[in-house]
Amino acid sequence: MGLIVQKFGGTSVADAEKIHRAARRAIRAKLDGNDVVVVVSAMNKTTDELVDLAYQVTDRPSRREMDQLLATGEQITIALMAMAIHHAGHDAISLTGGQIGLRTDASFGRARIREITERGRILQLLKRGSIVIAAGFQGVDEALNITTLGRGGSDTTAVALAASLQADVCEIFTDVDGIYSADPRIVPEARKLPFIFHDEMLELASLGAQVMHSRSVELGKNYDVRIHVRSSYTDAKGTDIVKESSDLGQIIVRGAALKKDLARVELIGVPNKPGLASEIFSHVADRDIIVDDIIQVIHKGGETADLSFTIEADNLQAAHLVIEELRREMPGMTSEVKTDLAKVSVVGVGMRTHTGVASRMFEALHQANINIDNISTSEIVISCVVNAEDGPRALRAVHSAFELDQEPRGTA
Amino acid sequence: MGLIVQKFGGTSVADAEKIHRAARRAIRAKLDGNDVVVVVSAMNKTTDELVDLAYQVTDRPSRREMDQLLATGEQITIALMAMAIHHAGHDAISLTGGQIGLRTDASFGRARIREITERGRILQLLKRGSIVIAAGFQGVDEALNITTLGRGGSDTTAVALAASLQADVCEIFTDVDGIYSADPRIVPEARKLPFIFHDEMLELASLGAQVMHSRSVELGKNYDVRIHVRSSYTDAKGTDIVKESSDLGQIIVRGAALKKDLARVELIGVPNKPGLASEIFSHVADRDIIVDDIIQVIHKGGETADLSFTIEADNLQAAHLVIEELRREMPGMTSEVKTDLAKVSVVGVGMRTHTGVASRMFEALHQANINIDNISTSEIVISCVVNAEDGPRALRAVHSAFELDQEPRGTA
Repeated sequence: MGLIVQKFGGTSVADAEKIHRAARRAIRAKLDGNDVVVVVSAMNKTTDELVDLAYQVTDRPSRREMDQLLATGEQITIALMAMAIHHAGHDAISLTGGQIGLRTDASFGRARIREITERGRILQLLKRGSIVIAAGFQGVDEALNITTLGRGGSDTTAVALAASLQADVCEIFTDVDGIYSADPRIVPEARKLPFIFHDEMLELASLGAQVMHSRSVELGKNYDVRIHVRSSYTDAKGTDIVKESSDLGQIIVRGAALKKDLARVELIGVPNKPGLASEIFSHVADRDIIVDDIIQVIHKGGETADLSFTIEADNLQAAHLVIEELRREMPGMTSEVKTDLAKVSVVGVGMRTHTGVASRMFEALHQANINIDNISTSEIVISCVVNAEDGPRALRAVHSAFELDQEPRGTA
Repeated sequence: MGLIVQKFGGTSVADAEKIHRAARRAIRAKLDGNDVVVVVSAMNKTTDELVDLAYQVTDRPSRREMDQLLATGEQITIALMAMAIHHAGHDAISLTGGQIGLRTDASFGRARIREITERGRILQLLKRGSIVIAAGFQGVDEALNITTLGRGGSDTTAVALAASLQADVCEIFTDVDGIYSADPRIVPEARKLPFIFHDEMLELASLGAQVMHSRSVELGKNYDVRIHVRSSYTDAKGTDIVKESSDLGQIIVRGAALKKDLARVELIGVPNKPGLASEIFSHVADRDIIVDDIIQVIHKGGETADLSFTIEADNLQAAHLVIEELRREMPGMTSEVKTDLAKVSVVGVGMRTHTGVASRMFEALHQANINIDNISTSEIVISCVVNAEDGPRALRAVHSAFELDQEPRGTA
């Protein structure tokens, strides 16, 4: 007996048959005695078709109108999902982002949630016995313009609703069956994790684990929402993303990740003056380049510095434009761009209280005969940049060195 | 310089090219110095696809969820229309039924408009120079559930907006180029009317003229909205539907119409008692049968009556069920059902002040050797039921008898 939020993504509602399957999931949870809120994305094909329509009309659709257009995608799914539940003889009612009162700022295409105003209406509908079907991904701003939340938006809606309704769990149904100690396509012996802490999931998400978008995990962390990531296709238990607690036993490294397709820009002999980094990175930010690690070395005498930073390969062309701009402003500067890099990382909140993690990682890579190009660390992450071709091997070596393929032993 | 509401139906926005064409219409009106509000329907194909999706999920979709689903149709068109206007370098903003504050009752699928609450917002957007694109056919009820207005709903939205904004004209762009003195497919010499009064249009609409739905014309009458029906494909002037005024000159008959596929039910020897008609027609109403003329004859002595009424052929099956029910309740009653009937009518507010119209019509039908099965008259309409096969010839005879193929001569 509790309140469950279930989220089904675009592939899980791709056609009438899949909508009926998702409906049965919701009904089962309801028959188990729970109040059930279902959050759905647009059917996969629908979004593609809507985008296609827009580009038939114009090559530069406005963000506001694009949101107005795309929001119809989830509105279609919620209506169909409610119909499917009715068809099975149960009560259901669909609500758009506006109807659940999901208020956002006015940043069309990537709006941020501010509050959910219709909590009372939702609770009343649940009390009446209805399964409430809410549109993911969409909200309304102060002036009731329709906004969308950007990538991972439906997950964010689900977690925000779970937070607002103080749900017992927010179940994310997806095409993988949980969070793994590493990507099983690269590391076949990777294990499905029974649970992971919000902070660990956040780091893994930013390191390339595609399962959950950081924004929804962060929301889950801030409002202490238990998120359960599980398969749309089986009944197997997935992975819980939960509040950090030593009661759950502690391990040092929860998982390992590989981020591919990286490049590094090195700026050599940059005149060393106050505001140097700020000046350089304002150019970088102007071109929407996402920067990973930054290393700055001041040369003896302090007149020049070398500065390097890692970027995603997608941003290479933009980076070359930045380099040209900087060369004009700093005539003495030279540059080098290194491509075909990858980054292997280990993540675990246990690192906060344990030492020797970095050296164990370096040793593992050394044993595997892999050169480390660059190292960066944060409180709960250690990352090594390596050559792209060594990436998968590096991930396997690290995964094995931290015994992530074995049942964790408590270390608390 | 004024305020124009332009409405484009589903065929006028059926694809990107047609949307651009409609956008150019709106822009031209704007460049002529007008404030412009555009009301659009769903793209023709979209509605079919949405209905198809619903029936893939269930054979009995709920009305509320069907409205939630179908309303996405216009939301798609408004976004695309705004994009098309942007593409041409002009300001535009799209608004859903909820965003224009079109409040209705909660009769899903056939909701009635109560008010438009966001008049102020629309006027402000117009003042700012935007072309406002509003979704036709849809509104929201008190609880912000999405509702749809049923047949002719987008016209109704357009006229309601024109009324609320006190627009100078509400232009209805359609695939015919105006209102004709009779259906030109049956009467080749029919003339396009420069204008017609609201009451005349209302009668013609209920007599089978498909151009405008009665509800929008009635709204136009009540709020004194000038409605201009014109072609999407040409610049030719169409027909104005305007407030009755003797200044416009008076003719007796404005137009003639033919309603096909009618049938008549005759109930013979019904026991004559108080509440007779009420009892019979409550059965008829229970089965959603739309009844046209009713004739009741009390027999000598007053113990029994004969009662007949005209229905559309679509309702024949339901009518037979009603007859069975009545037979059980009124054992002495017999019945006859006559099919393959049609009704030819003439309409004109001038009849209120002129006599001899009926006899002129009967004479015309007599001359054409057409039997009149039944006659009904109202203040501005005279109708004769004839055999279906005589229908087209009857329409041509009447059209000619009232010289509707010629420039009207003032008779005031």
